[in-house]
Amino acid sequence: MPTHIVKESKVDVLIIGAGPAGHMAATWFARTGVNARIIDKRSASQFVGQADGLQSRTLEIFQSFGFADRAIKESNHMLEICFWQPGEDASKGIERSGRIPDSTIGLSRFQQAVIHQGRVEGWMRDSWRKWSDNSLVLERPVQATELVIDTSIPASDIESYPVTVTVEHLKDEQAVAEQFGSKVSNGLFRQFGGDGDKNAKGETEIIHAKYVVGTDGAHSWVRRNLGISMVGESTDYIWGVLDGIPVTDFPDIRCRCAIHSAEHGSIMVIPREHNMIRLYIQLQKTPQASDSSSGRIDRSKITPELILENANKILFPYTIDMVDIKWFTAYQIGQRVATEFQKNGRVFLAGDATHTHSPKAGQGMNISMADTYNLAWKIAHIVKGVADPAILDTYESERKTIAQNLIDFDAKLSKLFSGRPAVPGIETPGVDLAEFHKVFEKGNEFASGTTVDYDGSILIDKATNELTETKRRYDEDNITTNPLATNCPIGRRLDTAQVVVQSDSKPVELADVCLSDGRWRVLYFAGDIKSNASLKNFMVKFGEYLEASDNFVKKYTPATASLYSVIDILLVHASSRTACEWNDFPSAFRPRDHKGRMDYLKIYADDTSYHQGHGHAYKKYGIDTSFGALLVVRPDGYLAKVEPLNQDGINSIEEFFAKFMIPQKVSLSNHEPIILEREEKEWYGSESYARRIFLE
Amino acid sequence: MPTHIVKESKVDVLIIGAGPAGHMAATWFARTGVNARIIDKRSASQFVGQADGLQSRTLEIFQSFGFADRAIKESNHMLEICFWQPGEDASKGIERSGRIPDSTIGLSRFQQAVIHQGRVEGWMRDSWRKWSDNSLVLERPVQATELVIDTSIPASDIESYPVTVTVEHLKDEQAVAEQFGSKVSNGLFRQFGGDGDKNAKGETEIIHAKYVVGTDGAHSWVRRNLGISMVGESTDYIWGVLDGIPVTDFPDIRCRCAIHSAEHGSIMVIPREHNMIRLYIQLQKTPQASDSSSGRIDRSKITPELILENANKILFPYTIDMVDIKWFTAYQIGQRVATEFQKNGRVFLAGDATHTHSPKAGQGMNISMADTYNLAWKIAHIVKGVADPAILDTYESERKTIAQNLIDFDAKLSKLFSGRPAVPGIETPGVDLAEFHKVFEKGNEFASGTTVDYDGSILIDKATNELTETKRRYDEDNITTNPLATNCPIGRRLDTAQVVVQSDSKPVELADVCLSDGRWRVLYFAGDIKSNASLKNFMVKFGEYLEASDNFVKKYTPATASLYSVIDILLVHASSRTACEWNDFPSAFRPRDHKGRMDYLKIYADDTSYHQGHGHAYKKYGIDTSFGALLVVRPDGYLAKVEPLNQDGINSIEEFFAKFMIPQKVSLSNHEPIILEREEKEWYGSESYARRIFLE
Repeated sequence: MPTHIVKESKVDVLIIGAGPAGHMAATWFARTGVNARIIDKRSASQFVGQADGLQSRTLEIFQSFGFADRAIKESNHMLEICFWQPGEDASKGIERSGRIPDSTIGLSRFQQAVIHQGRVEGWMRDSWRKWSDNSLVLERPVQATELVIDTSIPASDIESYPVTVTVEHLKDEQAVAEQFGSKVSNGLFRQFGGDGDKNAKGETEIIHAKYVVGTDGAHSWVRRNLGISMVGESTDYIWGVLDGIPVTDFPDIRCRCAIHSAEHGSIMVIPREHNMIRLYIQLQKTPQASDSSSGRIDRSKITPELILENANKILFPYTIDMVDIKWFTAYQIGQRVATEFQKNGRVFLAGDATHTHSPKAGQGMNISMADTYNLAWKIAHIVKGVADPAILDTYESERKTIAQNLIDFDAKLSKLFSGRPAVPGIETPGVDLAEFHKVFEKGNEFASGTTVDYDGSILIDKATNELTETKRRYDEDNITTNPLATNCPIGRRLDTAQVVVQSDSKPVELADVCLSDGRWRVLYFAGDIKSNASLKNFMVKFGEYLEASDNFVKKYTPATASLYSVIDILLVHASSRTACEWNDFPSAFRPRDHKGRMDYLKIYADDTSYHQGHGHAYKKYGIDTSFGALLVVRPDGYLAKVEPLNQDGINSIEEFFAKFMIPQKVSLSNHEPIILEREEKEWYGSESYARRIFLE
Repeated sequence: MPTHIVKESKVDVLIIGAGPAGHMAATWFARTGVNARIIDKRSASQFVGQADGLQSRTLEIFQSFGFADRAIKESNHMLEICFWQPGEDASKGIERSGRIPDSTIGLSRFQQAVIHQGRVEGWMRDSWRKWSDNSLVLERPVQATELVIDTSIPASDIESYPVTVTVEHLKDEQAVAEQFGSKVSNGLFRQFGGDGDKNAKGETEIIHAKYVVGTDGAHSWVRRNLGISMVGESTDYIWGVLDGIPVTDFPDIRCRCAIHSAEHGSIMVIPREHNMIRLYIQLQKTPQASDSSSGRIDRSKITPELILENANKILFPYTIDMVDIKWFTAYQIGQRVATEFQKNGRVFLAGDATHTHSPKAGQGMNISMADTYNLAWKIAHIVKGVADPAILDTYESERKTIAQNLIDFDAKLSKLFSGRPAVPGIETPGVDLAEFHKVFEKGNEFASGTTVDYDGSILIDKATNELTETKRRYDEDNITTNPLATNCPIGRRLDTAQVVVQSDSKPVELADVCLSDGRWRVLYFAGDIKSNASLKNFMVKFGEYLEASDNFVKKYTPATASLYSVIDILLVHASSRTACEWNDFPSAFRPRDHKGRMDYLKIYADDTSYHQGHGHAYKKYGIDTSFGALLVVRPDGYLAKVEPLNQDGINSIEEFFAKFMIPQKVSLSNHEPIILEREEKEWYGSESYARRIFLE
């Protein structure tokens, strides 16, 4: 008699591990309608501590999913960095040596914000619920115990389920992790013990998946299961971290502060939400300083009292106490990167499973989410049958470079931050604080996430650079631009600019009409069509091209999907909005659906608005209003290609898509799209176009 | 044997009727911690149709409660008005004759938005839930059947419950109202029949209340019960209204359009959320045109087809059809105002119960919410024992004027809108369309709600004007300003301006640190304290005054409340932020609570920000940086008083508050404030100050 019932099931994508990286993957899959599941072996969410920094690019991504407003509303906005160091007379303690903006000016419309990881995950779960009609839920505690890839199934077979994962559905009490204090063995809200334990008691399920995303943290079970190792610096820095509400006379406590004392070490102050602050103190420079033979110190000696005692020494002549200590812990993390980010093009690693580093640049949660933001839309494309699995190769090539950049940056900053400063009266050679400030300031650009620059590939049409040390350096400017759009580096995320909606005069950010909905976008900068006959002629010609049955839009759009639901076209002209009449634009840019309902959000003017000024988009992008340009933008917002407004440009875009998109059997023009009942009920215009393909 | 159990209960405030006005009252009561209940006899919320316009001032109010972002995110932003009229050759149909911004430029940071009433009510309910810890719920269907005021209890007795309301808790099926189409007898989603029916079957409850707010609509049972009548124009205009998604070649369908045809009447287009539009068509000019002997026409003849047929005649040469008709109805509403807005200072009427008018200026929901936004904080002050009941007299004096202004505006606009235009080729005298445009444009200023100007009273320190026709006219500029703040009319809402937070450099709108939390605010514009010794001296002196035990802040603050929880002080200086050191500001502006936790949000600089430019607040307010000013702002954001930075100014503010505030028995300085467990758990700095008094 069977005493243990084993379920079996199939899913397109299984996400193992529900930290920020797993949550971001699930958000993308829900948004694009992919059949996905997400499991985590812990029974509860984060409620204190852990990661807290949201960088500019992360907020841009949140905005593209529609929940940046929650981040902006709930988080603390960290705007200024103050540097403090010993004064001329070191015995008098520290003094302020400079102030800089925390987010480099002009890089993004969003600035760095701080809030605890649990809230961030909560926003993403709310987003899944909405987009998946409550069908995607975080399943926990569920523990994976076995993972096998059937390597006989080729990458091109997208109907089979080559990955078999055995999981145990645990009882809650089996999966409680310690969240507070020094009892936590590695300072992270880690996976509880028993990883991969085949004897775990629970209901067993065998899940057959097309793809698996392993986002199960620094001690990733998936990574170990795949036999992938972490390589990098062996130096493990140890950090004491304390969250609480301060009682202090230190004047800059609501700014981010990098404080070097003459003899007592360094501290970083992070002003947080709810009037909390976080203090980071580096407690040991190297494991050699520890008296433990294992190279790891005894973390149980680290207490809130010890951290505060150190803080008071560093802050002298100021004092600090804490009421309401919310969290404290000690981290000991090396700077390491995984040797591989995937296996067989079927199982992918992301987040802390692929990179570990110190927390103080506020990068961990951001880079982790950026990993799966890069990965999940590619998987969605393949599962939906619109692109070739070859595009998955770009995941490792794009993200491993970033991980290495992160480690390099972190190592450099840690060294400068933790070193004893070179100040008068101290004889030993010290850290040059001016250099520290410079690295910090430059590092902020990297830290913002907005300067990430993907190399040439099947998805980025520029020359491919070899992955050299020089290329990898985070502070190296090595950008590729096209003369038609001189301020738009190819391979970087296309920045936003304000334009006005032709149909209703509303000022909108271009990024807000290029949402993360799974679509490619061709931004057609039509130029000054009212005063330039050749630009107007091209508009007519391009409109005719888009109306014809064989073009790069319709070729890759399934018969079940609406026009522009795979590749969207937005027209941005540089003439006066009121000088242009709506009915004079080619009908390709004023499309109607099968019921005759028109999309009024495809045409924009680079013109002044009634209440919010002029966006000067052409100027911002470096596009000449006499020439215009065609910008091809990936579903994740990265600029893939820039082409001129002529037949060659159109041809080149055709060739680009032909390399990886899969021609659909029946063109849209022959079929009425399938409209879902729910879509009919809540018709959102162009919004519904985006979802339709993914809801077939 | 009793077959019908009668409950009895007590409540500080009972709200009868849960439309927008009732919802706004409940929002205020929840925010200020007043023991309130809200009942409605309908069993369901609005889900289609009805009011849809949100004016600038309404969005400012939403922002002050923390949910404007939801309005901005979910609504359609209506930015441009297009005027259309017959061209030179009227046989060729209409042509565009002009465009203007829909919201007058510079009046507010928010512009008019459109969304259906049900969503608006939903945001307010979410807000109650949050602020009342889920204790305030909309009780429905609950029908009031009897209301008696015990007139023997004086206004000054705030311990007794002089209003007795008998209510029946109905079953859902007893309370279903028709929401769609011409079967609705008055076009409104009205109270179902059986108003005040003492035979209504249900559980009976006798509620004893200190105050009752009657917000039960145009056919108010509370109003009739009090014997208060509506007076005004007898002419009832009839409007056909249709919501749906258009199929049209009319180019301005996503703009607000006022369209006069030569012979077929007028139409207003309102572009709405979800690509819907609303069409307003005036179907009859006067009831005399009807063949009904009652003076009311047969509304059953009005169908969507009829409305669309008329629309096509008016829009010629363009055509319009509708798919997905969401709602249609016909309104027949006179322009009338209630003779009284309250009874015995215990029962107050607000919203449609006090004013009815045509819908097309998008005013109804806004003025209704503004009524209870004016009323509820005053009741809260009295119930909490911090102010004298005499302040309630200002409700009728302030809001009845606005109601009359609204009626005047509506009558004027209706006449111009519905009249046949004076155009070449038409012999009969017609409406001068140029005048129509002018009235429309000027009317938009009134419609925005930002120019509402309350007369002198116990709560507004300016000379009192007699309520003349001239004064009442909506388009009359009749403002009172003080030379110290030349752009701040006394009696109007104080507009916002961007300043930067001294402690963390964040740019904030002043309005966003002057939230609707029940507090008075003294905005202390300290001037350029770094370069002007006398301004610096006053700052020190004012700081000492605020530290002393007998001042206008502490005198009115209950012992159970935190400092600044009744009257808040914010300092805005005009020096460079970085030139000022935090610890140099007087400690009154850097207050600590009983645990030593500091409030870092009381000091602001009128200075440039890192990412969002300079707010130029002093310039915007017309305040000289060499003089500064003290601005006293009511809990609802209206400017009550402007005084100079000297002892006379302080004395005058003392005298102002002495007229209506109730001195508290024990001063705060002798007592540690009572801190609630929940407040301790979620300490929000100055945020918690605001709530503490109301959570005693």
